[in-house]
Amino acid sequence: MKRLAILGSTGSIGQSTLSIVEQFPDRYSVAALAAGRNVDEALAQAARWHPQLVSMATEELADQLASRLRQAGISGTEVVHGTAGTVACSTLPQADFVVSAIVGVAGLEATHAAILAGKPVGLANKECMVAAGEILTAAARERNVPILPIDSEHNAVHQCMRVGAHHEVKTIWLTASGGPFRQTPLEQFAGITPEQALKHPTWVMGRRITIDSATLLNKGLEVIEACRLFDVPPSQVRVTVHPQSTVHSLVEYVDGSILAQISVTDMRLPILYALAYPERPASSLTFDLAALRHLDFEEPDFQRFPCLRLAFEAAEKGGAHCIALNAADEVAVEAFLGRRIPFSGIPDTIERVLAATPEAHPATISEVLEEDRRARERAAQLVL
Amino acid sequence: MKRLAILGSTGSIGQSTLSIVEQFPDRYSVAALAAGRNVDEALAQAARWHPQLVSMATEELADQLASRLRQAGISGTEVVHGTAGTVACSTLPQADFVVSAIVGVAGLEATHAAILAGKPVGLANKECMVAAGEILTAAARERNVPILPIDSEHNAVHQCMRVGAHHEVKTIWLTASGGPFRQTPLEQFAGITPEQALKHPTWVMGRRITIDSATLLNKGLEVIEACRLFDVPPSQVRVTVHPQSTVHSLVEYVDGSILAQISVTDMRLPILYALAYPERPASSLTFDLAALRHLDFEEPDFQRFPCLRLAFEAAEKGGAHCIALNAADEVAVEAFLGRRIPFSGIPDTIERVLAATPEAHPATISEVLEEDRRARERAAQLVL
Repeated sequence: MKRLAILGSTGSIGQSTLSIVEQFPDRYSVAALAAGRNVDEALAQAARWHPQLVSMATEELADQLASRLRQAGISGTEVVHGTAGTVACSTLPQADFVVSAIVGVAGLEATHAAILAGKPVGLANKECMVAAGEILTAAARERNVPILPIDSEHNAVHQCMRVGAHHEVKTIWLTASGGPFRQTPLEQFAGITPEQALKHPTWVMGRRITIDSATLLNKGLEVIEACRLFDVPPSQVRVTVHPQSTVHSLVEYVDGSILAQISVTDMRLPILYALAYPERPASSLTFDLAALRHLDFEEPDFQRFPCLRLAFEAAEKGGAHCIALNAADEVAVEAFLGRRIPFSGIPDTIERVLAATPEAHPATISEVLEEDRRARERAAQLVL
Repeated sequence: MKRLAILGSTGSIGQSTLSIVEQFPDRYSVAALAAGRNVDEALAQAARWHPQLVSMATEELADQLASRLRQAGISGTEVVHGTAGTVACSTLPQADFVVSAIVGVAGLEATHAAILAGKPVGLANKECMVAAGEILTAAARERNVPILPIDSEHNAVHQCMRVGAHHEVKTIWLTASGGPFRQTPLEQFAGITPEQALKHPTWVMGRRITIDSATLLNKGLEVIEACRLFDVPPSQVRVTVHPQSTVHSLVEYVDGSILAQISVTDMRLPILYALAYPERPASSLTFDLAALRHLDFEEPDFQRFPCLRLAFEAAEKGGAHCIALNAADEVAVEAFLGRRIPFSGIPDTIERVLAATPEAHPATISEVLEEDRRARERAAQLVL
């Protein structure tokens, strides 16, 4: 029985994780939930799963949850809050495995603490690896703690990497859906509206990640994540546009063999893989290969998607540049959604923030957070 | 340094194997060559590779080679002949690895002997596994001898099987190019000529295997081979038609993940994989993934390709039925090429031979060969 600490339990990945626990009650139980701001959902989850610990974003929300738990007659669940609360969840001695699914750098400290505590991590938080991947992977290597990727691309890469030795890997190929503007002419990019950009062809996701998919910045973050997770330089990571999102990624070996992973586009599959690794429990998440007809691939267009180029450049520089890329993008996407900058203003803002970013390699999480704050300030000034 | 015994050294797989030895002189050397009937080529190979042993098909050919070796001043190479000679090659104490690439059941005894002698086998001989797979795999399991498949499909499956446990495999999907008649209407099948059938869309191969690709019997033999090599029932093997022959096969796991292997269509790749396993040496056999545009898949049509149905039926019955399938097909293909029966006569002949075949499981190689002889006789009478 694996006892889980789920950071971001009320979000999409958190809920999918709980649906896996529901499906495999003999394999998984819930030890701790970091739930954020949704008291109703946190209450429902606590009532259903009886975690030892629940963390809310603020003291006020924690008090609300505690009082509603009392009213409902639910005992045995302690309620904590804030970053310290999230860290308490991720380091709970009774938890065997931490699912890190808090969006943004908010989950960073708790994820780092989980690794320091020697707990295997299922990582759904891209920004953690982008902003602090050097620190997290170094800590994980030192303690021999596995970090199992919970996103479809890196999960696919993780699977394909099992077919050879690390030094035999030539190139990691991340697939990209190409987003809604894959075939939009360059001259129309300036006029793209938030409404157009929020329509993703394949996945239903949050607002920022949907815009990031439209700019391909999301794929750029994944390039950086791949470098960190799999310990390869950016020159060994490439992107191929694959509109069907059926092949989730590929790994090319030095002998010439390429391994690819195919599955349904359902996050429960990488979650189950991470939780059960190295086992593969039988699931109902089947892909109908007999019905497969066509798979299309094309090269990404770095001219129409400058965010992808910027990400590769940041990946080469590492450290502060990766932090700034992520932070500046988050600010720029908000500004775009608020109609303060055009679609093409997203890469412009990122490029200008990167140009003002020193080549530095923060060595601690607080240095990372400080660099993140500075980049956000720089970006905020640009999108005023 | 791995010292190889190459059975079928003058054939296409044998020559490709020697080109791999040429490319990796620090990894591989040649201990023995079973060369068959081509004395010129056997002489050239002996001169180049200085094997300890060379076997020719007959005593007369062996004498010719021995005398030409003397004339050429090449010493240190003993020349033997016949089945005993091939067995001497495959069991040579100085050989570490046996490449089994003699076409047809002729290579069966030597391959069995290699396994009994505890030597890892790279198997390019499909008929071995179809006719005597039950015996060969039992012997290999008993002695813990690896059998590494040297054909693109099973080699791909072998790679994809490394990503999970055996009991986690749900379905092995073999890809088939579909052959030249993939889109030919059923009513035109009776009139297909040998010239039409000998044009294979993707691979350049021998005559029988080219016809077998056109009838999909070849894929049927591979279904049986997959059952034996990977110890799964026929119900766990399926075929998908993939005209580009880019994905060489796929393995579907019970959790829903499907792993696929992609590479150039060059037999040197599976040969290198088998020789080097579990390592992957760097090769120049690269597939240009950036240039990949489309992959197409479709379900096989069992009505137009009854040989595939017959193979699945034979796979279910095992033993004598698999032997008869292979033997009857070889006779029928010869008759088709000799214009004695129409294209549709190939499955008809096989079906009638299978109908007259008892459900039996030969327990020795000589029983297998006896069953093979009987099936050929039955088929020969039908195609007179």
